[in-house]
Amino acid sequence: MAKKRVGVVLSGCGVYDGTEIHEATLTLYFLDRAGAQAIAMAPNIVQHHVIDHLLGAATSETRNVLVESARIARGQVRDVATVKANELDAIIIPGGFGAAKNLSTIAFDGPEAKTNPDVSRLILDMYQAKKPIGALCIAPAMLSKVLAGKGVTLTIGDDAGVAGAIQKMGNVHQESDFAGIVIDTPNRIVTTAAYMCAASIAEAGQGIEKLVAQILTMV
Amino acid sequence: MAKKRVGVVLSGCGVYDGTEIHEATLTLYFLDRAGAQAIAMAPNIVQHHVIDHLLGAATSETRNVLVESARIARGQVRDVATVKANELDAIIIPGGFGAAKNLSTIAFDGPEAKTNPDVSRLILDMYQAKKPIGALCIAPAMLSKVLAGKGVTLTIGDDAGVAGAIQKMGNVHQESDFAGIVIDTPNRIVTTAAYMCAASIAEAGQGIEKLVAQILTMV
Repeated sequence: MAKKRVGVVLSGCGVYDGTEIHEATLTLYFLDRAGAQAIAMAPNIVQHHVIDHLLGAATSETRNVLVESARIARGQVRDVATVKANELDAIIIPGGFGAAKNLSTIAFDGPEAKTNPDVSRLILDMYQAKKPIGALCIAPAMLSKVLAGKGVTLTIGDDAGVAGAIQKMGNVHQESDFAGIVIDTPNRIVTTAAYMCAASIAEAGQGIEKLVAQILTMV
Repeated sequence: MAKKRVGVVLSGCGVYDGTEIHEATLTLYFLDRAGAQAIAMAPNIVQHHVIDHLLGAATSETRNVLVESARIARGQVRDVATVKANELDAIIIPGGFGAAKNLSTIAFDGPEAKTNPDVSRLILDMYQAKKPIGALCIAPAMLSKVLAGKGVTLTIGDDAGVAGAIQKMGNVHQESDFAGIVIDTPNRIVTTAAYMCAASIAEAGQGIEKLVAQILTMV
């Protein structure tokens, strides 16, 4: 039987300016352990900014989202602009500020955010093809903007501000914690709070493990 | 009961010029899941070089090992120069070229390599205190140099060149694959091949999961 092909959308490498590394790595781990094929991808764009993760402050450096994402993917990462929905059985978007700063402008513009056109096109194609979509941590806020007005149900944990933004986008927020997943069965969307609520990597892993299993069940 | 405190020595962020991200993340995951406290640390030095992980080629950038390691540790990483062996119950060194280019010069100098003095001091103090030491992937070659002449038994998988270098350093190489661990009981050292042999993250995870469990048993 052919492996299930799951796109993993990266947004850089590091929680404050890119993909949350633990969330992405555990997603890849649980997918591979279940016998699925992960296909890592990212947009070929300049990062919004570079954060020194030791000091928590912006630096004067310039880094590229695709190039930095390649660190998480051990070099095997595709430009999302070249990926078509018919190559994938499902898609998962890990969190980290990259989802809110590089894949979208959620971190700055809330419900008025813009989203990356290539990522948005792929998500919309997956949605219209009724293929399952997973999102972790803050990534459901970006997903909510791409699917604005469709009334999809999502969780970003229990942050009232982000939950309110999701509702303003015409979607439904459901509270959850790190151990749970929220399943929107008709829309084939699965979300989990991960580090929006988790205090440690094993806590984040609880929801991510369930999300990956649920996505593969829905394929 | 107090948590077991396990130092995790990082060497940057990315397989080709720093810590192998999957190996480090899975080490942190298995430690946390087992109820241990991981204490991430790295030397505050400039990286040997920066590799574009998409192209596999060196760039003109300059990055700091401690600052980049903070990406894997979500900001919580200590300068290894400030860490004392009496703060730790055990130590684990993930792989990636950072262990062979930043923590040591193994990648360039083989058995004649130099090793970072702060990392070497901490490893030697742990060894003399009979506290367990774990190393993954290529990191056992660096460990072998720090413990040169002590006749410790290690694995880096089945690479004949690196195995020969370990023997030239006065230690013993034992072949293994990604699923196995090599335990040197009298010297309290546990090693696993990880991505030296593994073709995927779940394969690497097999040995890493066993190594973490073994290290915690030995504490």
